[in-house]
Amino acid sequence: MAKGASLSGFPEWLPQERVVEQKIIDTLRQVFELHGFLGIETRAIEQGSSLLKKGETSKEIYLLSRLQEVGHESDTPIENRLGLHFDLTVPLSRYVVENSGSLVFPFKRWQIQKVWRGERPQEGRFREFVQADIDVVGNGELAEHYEVELPLVMVEALERLGEYGLPKATVHVNNRKLSEGFYRAVGLTDVEGVLREVDKLDKIGADEVATLLKSECGANEEQAAACLDLAQITTSDAHELDVAFAQLCEKYGVDRSGEAYELAQQGLDTLSHIVADAASIRPGAVVADLKIARGLDYYTGSVYETFLDGAPQLGSICSGGRYDNLASQGKKKYPGVGLSIGLSRLLSYLLHTVGAQASRQSPAAVMVAVWDEGSRDASNAVAQALRARGINTDVSPNSAKIGKQIKYASKLGIPYVWFPPTVDEGTDSEQSSHQVKNIVTGEQVEADSMSWIPDTVYAQQTIIEVHAE
Amino acid sequence: MAKGASLSGFPEWLPQERVVEQKIIDTLRQVFELHGFLGIETRAIEQGSSLLKKGETSKEIYLLSRLQEVGHESDTPIENRLGLHFDLTVPLSRYVVENSGSLVFPFKRWQIQKVWRGERPQEGRFREFVQADIDVVGNGELAEHYEVELPLVMVEALERLGEYGLPKATVHVNNRKLSEGFYRAVGLTDVEGVLREVDKLDKIGADEVATLLKSECGANEEQAAACLDLAQITTSDAHELDVAFAQLCEKYGVDRSGEAYELAQQGLDTLSHIVADAASIRPGAVVADLKIARGLDYYTGSVYETFLDGAPQLGSICSGGRYDNLASQGKKKYPGVGLSIGLSRLLSYLLHTVGAQASRQSPAAVMVAVWDEGSRDASNAVAQALRARGINTDVSPNSAKIGKQIKYASKLGIPYVWFPPTVDEGTDSEQSSHQVKNIVTGEQVEADSMSWIPDTVYAQQTIIEVHAE
Repeated sequence: MAKGASLSGFPEWLPQERVVEQKIIDTLRQVFELHGFLGIETRAIEQGSSLLKKGETSKEIYLLSRLQEVGHESDTPIENRLGLHFDLTVPLSRYVVENSGSLVFPFKRWQIQKVWRGERPQEGRFREFVQADIDVVGNGELAEHYEVELPLVMVEALERLGEYGLPKATVHVNNRKLSEGFYRAVGLTDVEGVLREVDKLDKIGADEVATLLKSECGANEEQAAACLDLAQITTSDAHELDVAFAQLCEKYGVDRSGEAYELAQQGLDTLSHIVADAASIRPGAVVADLKIARGLDYYTGSVYETFLDGAPQLGSICSGGRYDNLASQGKKKYPGVGLSIGLSRLLSYLLHTVGAQASRQSPAAVMVAVWDEGSRDASNAVAQALRARGINTDVSPNSAKIGKQIKYASKLGIPYVWFPPTVDEGTDSEQSSHQVKNIVTGEQVEADSMSWIPDTVYAQQTIIEVHAE
Repeated sequence: MAKGASLSGFPEWLPQERVVEQKIIDTLRQVFELHGFLGIETRAIEQGSSLLKKGETSKEIYLLSRLQEVGHESDTPIENRLGLHFDLTVPLSRYVVENSGSLVFPFKRWQIQKVWRGERPQEGRFREFVQADIDVVGNGELAEHYEVELPLVMVEALERLGEYGLPKATVHVNNRKLSEGFYRAVGLTDVEGVLREVDKLDKIGADEVATLLKSECGANEEQAAACLDLAQITTSDAHELDVAFAQLCEKYGVDRSGEAYELAQQGLDTLSHIVADAASIRPGAVVADLKIARGLDYYTGSVYETFLDGAPQLGSICSGGRYDNLASQGKKKYPGVGLSIGLSRLLSYLLHTVGAQASRQSPAAVMVAVWDEGSRDASNAVAQALRARGINTDVSPNSAKIGKQIKYASKLGIPYVWFPPTVDEGTDSEQSSHQVKNIVTGEQVEADSMSWIPDTVYAQQTIIEVHAE
């Protein structure tokens, strides 16, 4: 991270780090477009009423005021003030409703943008970061197959980041209907409450959660045990999943003719479908994990969290789910399903833990030397000839001694230095032809700016792993 | 623009419009990297003290407050509050100072990001928009040749946007030293004041400016005439420029041995150099225009504004200049020169006046049809085979009648529909092979997902001009 970063929580990257971020963004965009997602951006600013409506982070928003309004901010109710968006899902819902007449449904979109969270500075968390989202939003209805397909698109995208050193990612899936149906079937009514406590399993352990289920959610001993048993189920085999759930229902005497069981069964069907499909297309990439709860209250079906092999401390790097009630216009609903990659956190991990970095700082493959300022035009002409053929080319900032010019190229990681013919004929250092030197290998050859091309390995900036922990 | 856009000044684009914006961004980035500029992003948020320090727009900023601070915003002095950046130059200066130990100087960077201006809503101007900047910043000193080269990089970039219908751009250049030296040489001392009034020439005309120079800047009749005469000089010929300026000095009896004249001469030399170089490389692209004043008080040398042929109402679409005193650390200065494209305004012009639009809404070149939901996996497999070969591929959202599926592809502008073999053998509509149909031309052929490629003209999203005013 840029060393002088003067505001904690607002990461800035050095140029060679930004290359890695840019490559990640380019790669994600490429995968999303391979799958036919349309790219959009939404404005960074939403009305307070939108920001406060939904989502667990609604309390961590930045509100705006014009400089002229300072001292009078409170004259305007928060609902009418402007604020920075804290995710890309709430803005998408608004965008879809506002533009429903102009969009083709189901609307598949990708979106990579910064978001902001008004966290307390001392928390040490990012207050500005980039998210990379895909969602499909239907008009009135949304086919279930998208709940199967979207996590697989993300798995494919994350797999592609493997070339920059990202470990294998596994999507953990649960289903809200399954959880809610089961909780109700064993006689619990405070579904939100139970989800909230179960969500703490990894942090505080099963005993503590059982205690909280009893004290906060009105569960008896057996009901608490049932919730914890459900949360234990995790498998990437659809048949195993069905069997495990059936055994659980048997154990706790669930009434299989009730509405609650029917709801659970709907959720189970979707979940089985996801696991089965994933197993055939990308074995091991998706696992049913019935403890996944997700805090956000707008999810109504599948919920997803994604973990990297060997990086549990990082938490979920790609989360989401199905939301049927986030966007509506009169009676019409726009159900959606989507996942969001926390790109800045992922980048930070790649840079600082994996040791990914740019093969060079400059995009230029070659720098043209300048013999003296009077011949800068000649050097610029060589550069333009190379650029016209698509070769990224810099020109020496000065006409210092050649050693110094080479050092400048070297500091930027530019692999080639181009020498036009020398200005002073007849001197010891006379050079009558164009020459290009690979300053990594030391090889120097005659070259023509109309035909020379850099060796493939030196042509482009790439990402390399410098160390691995 | 997205029709429902509910907040004036915060533009949002429909997917097919966003394609044009994305292509512009991709093109600019490509040109900037061809010239060896390094890409960076800075955080969107700056401290109040940075935002208030410099720049004419310092009064049009958005300050932030956390939701929890509402009602107590004024407890914090504005200098210590956070605000959204209003340009990319002030953040660059801070970034350079903070990271000076990690950067290679001269530091050439490109940056394309959103900026915000806290304008009054009723002004109808963009309050959120994208800027595309290039700058070179030196450590202690900065060679003058960058003042010549940077506008030419922007001309090249804008020329490349000609393929999307952008008219020819011309950079108008002046030099602060030239103006200041001349004003002082004719006995005027309120240089900032004179620049401010001359800047109004296009709006209020020469007579009004003369009146203001006299009433506001202490000019007499002859001094006012001298300022207006200077502002009249415009030429793309370096020799003509020198001659015109010499005649003006003669006319107003300028003392050629004085310091003021020397300063003017320095500015003139740089300006002549720019015009001469530009004339040899890109004839007609750059013109010396001595009425260009630029409001921002941080410019100290060359100043640039750029206009499009036939679009004077648009004003300058790419502006900038040299600034020697914006960034400093102790005694060390970081002089810079740069230009900034107002990308959102340019995009709006391309979309709404030129009529540029995406050849199709979806990035997908082909959509695979689905005979029934039971065979969706087979359709997905075809899609994955095509994607593995880099062909952007969508799959039908449903298994409705083929006519409806084709209509979905057609609405998204997807040119090809792929038909896997039919499920029901022996029926009238049996089809035993894979086939692909170009729904634009109606041509349908047998195809193999391992080898088929779309015709070049249909392979990629491109930008087309639909109408011209």
